[in-house]
Amino acid sequence: MVKSTFGKNLTVSIFGESHGAAIGVVIDGLAAGIPLDMAAIRRDLDFRRATGAISTARQEGDEFEIVSGFFEGHTTGTPLCLMIRNTSTRSGDYARTKDLLRPGHADYTAFVKYGDWQDYRGGGHFSGRITAPLVAAGAICRQILAAHGVMIGTHIAECGGVADAPMPSDEAALAAALDRLNNTAFAVLDADRGDKMQQAVLAAKADGDSVGGVLETAVIGMPAGIGEPFFNSVESTLAHLLFSVPAVKGVEFGAGFAFAGMRGSEANDPWRMQDGRLRTATNNNGGINGGISNGMPIVFRTVIKPTPSIYREQQTVDYAARQDATLQIKGRHDPAIIHRARVVIDAAAAIGLCELFCEAFGTAWQIDGIVNK
Amino acid sequence: MVKSTFGKNLTVSIFGESHGAAIGVVIDGLAAGIPLDMAAIRRDLDFRRATGAISTARQEGDEFEIVSGFFEGHTTGTPLCLMIRNTSTRSGDYARTKDLLRPGHADYTAFVKYGDWQDYRGGGHFSGRITAPLVAAGAICRQILAAHGVMIGTHIAECGGVADAPMPSDEAALAAALDRLNNTAFAVLDADRGDKMQQAVLAAKADGDSVGGVLETAVIGMPAGIGEPFFNSVESTLAHLLFSVPAVKGVEFGAGFAFAGMRGSEANDPWRMQDGRLRTATNNNGGINGGISNGMPIVFRTVIKPTPSIYREQQTVDYAARQDATLQIKGRHDPAIIHRARVVIDAAAAIGLCELFCEAFGTAWQIDGIVNK
Amino acid sequence: MVKSTFGKNLTVSIFGESHGAAIGVVIDGLAAGIPLDMAAIRRDLDFRRATGAISTARQEGDEFEIVSGFFEGHTTGTPLCLMIRNTSTRSGDYARTKDLLRPGHADYTAFVKYGDWQDYRGGGHFSGRITAPLVAAGAICRQILAAHGVMIGTHIAECGGVADAPMPSDEAALAAALDRLNNTAFAVLDADRGDKMQQAVLAAKADGDSVGGVLETAVIGMPAGIGEPFFNSVESTLAHLLFSVPAVKGVEFGAGFAFAGMRGSEANDPWRMQDGRLRTATNNNGGINGGISNGMPIVFRTVIKPTPSIYREQQTVDYAARQDATLQIKGRHDPAIIHRARVVIDAAAAIGLCELFCEAFGTAWQIDGIVNK
Amino acid sequence: MVKSTFGKNLTVSIFGESHGAAIGVVIDGLAAGIPLDMAAIRRDLDFRRATGAISTARQEGDEFEIVSGFFEGHTTGTPLCLMIRNTSTRSGDYARTKDLLRPGHADYTAFVKYGDWQDYRGGGHFSGRITAPLVAAGAICRQILAAHGVMIGTHIAECGGVADAPMPSDEAALAAALDRLNNTAFAVLDADRGDKMQQAVLAAKADGDSVGGVLETAVIGMPAGIGEPFFNSVESTLAHLLFSVPAVKGVEFGAGFAFAGMRGSEANDPWRMQDGRLRTATNNNGGINGGISNGMPIVFRTVIKPTPSIYREQQTVDYAARQDATLQIKGRHDPAIIHRARVVIDAAAAIGLCELFCEAFGTAWQIDGIVNK
Repeated sequence: MVKSTFGKNLTVSIFGESHGAAIGVVIDGLAAGIPLDMAAIRRDLDFRRATGAISTARQEGDEFEIVSGFFEGHTTGTPLCLMIRNTSTRSGDYARTKDLLRPGHADYTAFVKYGDWQDYRGGGHFSGRITAPLVAAGAICRQILAAHGVMIGTHIAECGGVADAPMPSDEAALAAALDRLNNTAFAVLDADRGDKMQQAVLAAKADGDSVGGVLETAVIGMPAGIGEPFFNSVESTLAHLLFSVPAVKGVEFGAGFAFAGMRGSEANDPWRMQDGRLRTATNNNGGINGGISNGMPIVFRTVIKPTPSIYREQQTVDYAARQDATLQIKGRHDPAIIHRARVVIDAAAAIGLCELFCEAFGTAWQIDGIVNK
Repeated sequence: MVKSTFGKNLTVSIFGESHGAAIGVVIDGLAAGIPLDMAAIRRDLDFRRATGAISTARQEGDEFEIVSGFFEGHTTGTPLCLMIRNTSTRSGDYARTKDLLRPGHADYTAFVKYGDWQDYRGGGHFSGRITAPLVAAGAICRQILAAHGVMIGTHIAECGGVADAPMPSDEAALAAALDRLNNTAFAVLDADRGDKMQQAVLAAKADGDSVGGVLETAVIGMPAGIGEPFFNSVESTLAHLLFSVPAVKGVEFGAGFAFAGMRGSEANDPWRMQDGRLRTATNNNGGINGGISNGMPIVFRTVIKPTPSIYREQQTVDYAARQDATLQIKGRHDPAIIHRARVVIDAAAAIGLCELFCEAFGTAWQIDGIVNK
Repeated sequence: MVKSTFGKNLTVSIFGESHGAAIGVVIDGLAAGIPLDMAAIRRDLDFRRATGAISTARQEGDEFEIVSGFFEGHTTGTPLCLMIRNTSTRSGDYARTKDLLRPGHADYTAFVKYGDWQDYRGGGHFSGRITAPLVAAGAICRQILAAHGVMIGTHIAECGGVADAPMPSDEAALAAALDRLNNTAFAVLDADRGDKMQQAVLAAKADGDSVGGVLETAVIGMPAGIGEPFFNSVESTLAHLLFSVPAVKGVEFGAGFAFAGMRGSEANDPWRMQDGRLRTATNNNGGINGGISNGMPIVFRTVIKPTPSIYREQQTVDYAARQDATLQIKGRHDPAIIHRARVVIDAAAAIGLCELFCEAFGTAWQIDGIVNK
Repeated sequence: MVKSTFGKNLTVSIFGESHGAAIGVVIDGLAAGIPLDMAAIRRDLDFRRATGAISTARQEGDEFEIVSGFFEGHTTGTPLCLMIRNTSTRSGDYARTKDLLRPGHADYTAFVKYGDWQDYRGGGHFSGRITAPLVAAGAICRQILAAHGVMIGTHIAECGGVADAPMPSDEAALAAALDRLNNTAFAVLDADRGDKMQQAVLAAKADGDSVGGVLETAVIGMPAGIGEPFFNSVESTLAHLLFSVPAVKGVEFGAGFAFAGMRGSEANDPWRMQDGRLRTATNNNGGINGGISNGMPIVFRTVIKPTPSIYREQQTVDYAARQDATLQIKGRHDPAIIHRARVVIDAAAAIGLCELFCEAFGTAWQIDGIVNK
């Protein structure tokens, strides 16, 4: 069945393995005439790449090439294929643990599904590396959305037991915060708390261990009326994409799980007129009512589980021998990926929102001002 | 665009409005020759219906008719249409608040999307009533899964500040618990805590208010290897459906948001051989690695926001006049829907899992034993 | 897999069996606020119904009911379900030949696919009767197209060895011809030739035999630029739907199979400026270049095979006994269906074109004038 | 909207422009462990490439690289991306006619759809060159089908006024004929008639003109029961793909348009028992009843219009100036493409049939013998 293709109107197909010849993406459904800012794609890919002490030592340049659908600085309206050649591949590290199932990884499920035929090197198609083309596709979608006044940004709300400052509720302050986040490699609102997070990551690394965390994302400038009551709700579409990002195990919109402890009188967001516009006094519903955007910021949180590749000895099973064993992982691994995952979340959100716009307005909205006309 | 149709291989299309002539569902993609247990469909519909002091006074018999795709006790392999005629409709209650946007409801987003053309009576297509055909479709899917040894069950993990006993981790105990839940109208594992939950609901009702809660679902008997690494992961597919259920604002798998506070060494589930089978010592990943089922129980939690229809006076906006106003809701409403929603969650999970099985094994698996052969 | 659901943006799901409780269709993806002309739906259903000496004696009133998605004279924007109860069912006629495979019918393929579980009465879901909801869906789509200046019409180009007059090439004359055809039960341009066709049908009937023919369809008012270069070409989309109509075994656009005998210098349609508009001097390409509408009338022809239900004794196989046998069909059957099929072809074309418009312009085009603005 | 992506279960996305960096295809939905015969892919690509006096002088090596989804000689079960770098690009030839609409080409429709943003060089994404990745994808699908005993072959039934010998009706003779065709560059059953066809092509070339023709395809070894009654009929699925091949303007199954002159008693294929198998005495229905394969050879014919690029002076319009003009095409063009198109038709059929198998049996059938077990 279809593993790596998303979307009915803006179809995104990602391909590649961690240690194969190349990874990439085909985006089918772009309008013609969209100017693309290569530097913005480059920036998002750099945010996703490993950097610094708290990341893996594997360094990929992630040089990308657009091989189709792009001509003289603009999209042509035909499928855009973007490729990234793999260069830094040290497969030897991986072959050694081929039969020992890494806990928390997809080794066993991949064996069941693909048998001996998988490209086991570095996680193959399961590798977090395959999120690079997703980020590239998202960077293109973000440009389309930005041209319509829709901006997305994510901060690390929690990591290693440290919480960041909350997203501002004031609209202008939120816009400024998103702008700052989109120009920051370690995306926090409060730099001091960011330092503490990084110390917590380094502490885990020193223990041969890893940490997870929570990302919080806001989307501003969304017109009301996007999304559908049931299966194509904004929540359904975004969650579908968010849960396809490796390591995401939970997604909540607005107050999310905190709704469980509220009464309706607290949970309901009162409508108010503000400067001639309809706004809600609170935003517990995260900008979505009945599956449809209500014009308030869309706010959601995703939990990223701790990186499963740790250096501590672990109990597991030798799959070939079908017997208990212990495992000592080697190679190059991140003690945390949350600071890299944030731009993958942005990308997933951008792709999902573009699909929803396309469903309402076709391909045409991307370029000719149907939206917000 | 497509609002109410889900699935590529097992397509489920729901239709209807709260106060229209009928609501129903078309299921396209069933194999021929599946015997259907009408009593099981009836039971799930009854679990969803309003009953007792903690529910709405609106009483619908929900008598269903299968008008196609079913002949001499079995599915025919052609589209199955199941309809429920609406009978208890008191639209007068609703007309009165037509211009006052109900906070927490989809009134505003529906106005933006559908203008004056929506069937505003009782929430129209946004009504929770439209989940009845979803439950019926789910009841059919549950029968198909049960014939392959896959069982789904849900309990109210938290409601009105009261937590239920946890799901058992022992396999046999879990199977017994799911069986009990599937024969219980108010689905808790600990009856005393269930009583306390109902008291909390009645207390909120006495205040003209409402409560939400958390549902926890387990799926046992799932073979390993179902689902796909990226966009068709088990999490993506189930979350897509779960977030299409009105009032669901968060979904987490396994440890979910608790992963944020764990280190990798705690989070990873160690593989162990048990009686010749591969099992994990813990199940923090909720039965899913890399988007694919690993043979352990699939476990997820969904948060249900408090019912937005409350009797307390609320601040809102008069949409026609575009000015602030106060709203006093009348009519028949539930102080809690979580005890009714549990079977909607079961249905959503069953539909999603059937679609994933179809993607792996086509239509054929439903009837001829390809799975678990 | 999905048998009876078409379309990504305007999804049409048909359901029902010839002798079941009801047949119907769910249309998901209509905009809100489209006024529906019930008389036009009625007219198209009447064109499809059996009438007169050259048709079956089975008489169904085809009374339809819209049970959802329609309120106070307009679409609501939510799924529209239209149902037709079956009333005239004499299944006894069919039971008698249950094991004898009717040549030219789907009896054998249905046995292989559905086994003993099919609703064999009257062809079940394979019955031409299931085209009634398709016609109803098409009648709705035709209204949407007509509001944008797009008109579809079909004539019987050939039947029983008799050819109708050709479609006029002059635009105004073509528009007038389509209008006449859309108000004529036996759709020919030349009434005398229509009489000869009917005589040929009656001659076949007298012999216990049946005839087929060719339908030719024209679509005027199509804007240029609809459709896509490859898999969503206008030809691909229309042919997909046309070949789903029972009895259609060939589809050609423009000159079609006559291209085989032409040279490029004859086949190419020269572009010319006419009254400030781009037109082609000939229309061999049937209004489509590179899969995309070019603004000229879209013209295509479909061949309808002779009705397989004939009264002459036929050789066949007894499927239960697996041995050669002879078959004598009884019951109520048409000596020709081409005069009834014409409105099914119109419907298929209308559904396909609406889907293509939705892909370009989203749901929004249906109601707010994005097209031809 | 989605332009170049086909299939729900076996998704094929083609990308690239005639004179861009590369063309290619992503196939998503292959099972793991399928051994691929590179020579067979090479052979089909060579059949599609221009060769000899009757073809264009443009020579592309069509060296392909599989960049993902393939490891140690087998598919991995993850998306397979195959790329072909463009090498022989002389864009100067094309720039000269940029504003003069080439009759029979997609120049005008591309302008309307993509504006100034298209890659106009050599037809861009509309170029017949984009069928190379389609052929590569088809070559992979043909290998999967062949492993299940399903063989596809096509001959040039008519070209330049010359008809080939008919396909044999005897099963063994047909199998031998298909095998010969699949090893012949100019695919005819009668070599003398093939010579006459080539003479007719050269005569047209000498006149600065071009010819079209008819291709006839047979598929043997198809099990009965594949396909669906309505929108996923075998005819609908194959026609959808066939009409996406540039220059195809008509498709007919079995007797096709000849049905128009038959009576039911001639058209119906009598069922007979032959050596314990159900066969039909004739095959007017082309192996398909009610949209579902009946176990007889699937037979269809496609018409290929004459190549629109001719050297004779043509009337047209200067699109920039919006005035009548004359056009003299230069560059490298084929006087016929039918001998190259035959393998594109084989590929389209193979992709469509694999999708239908997947719908019945999931991904699993490709590798584990569910079919024909």
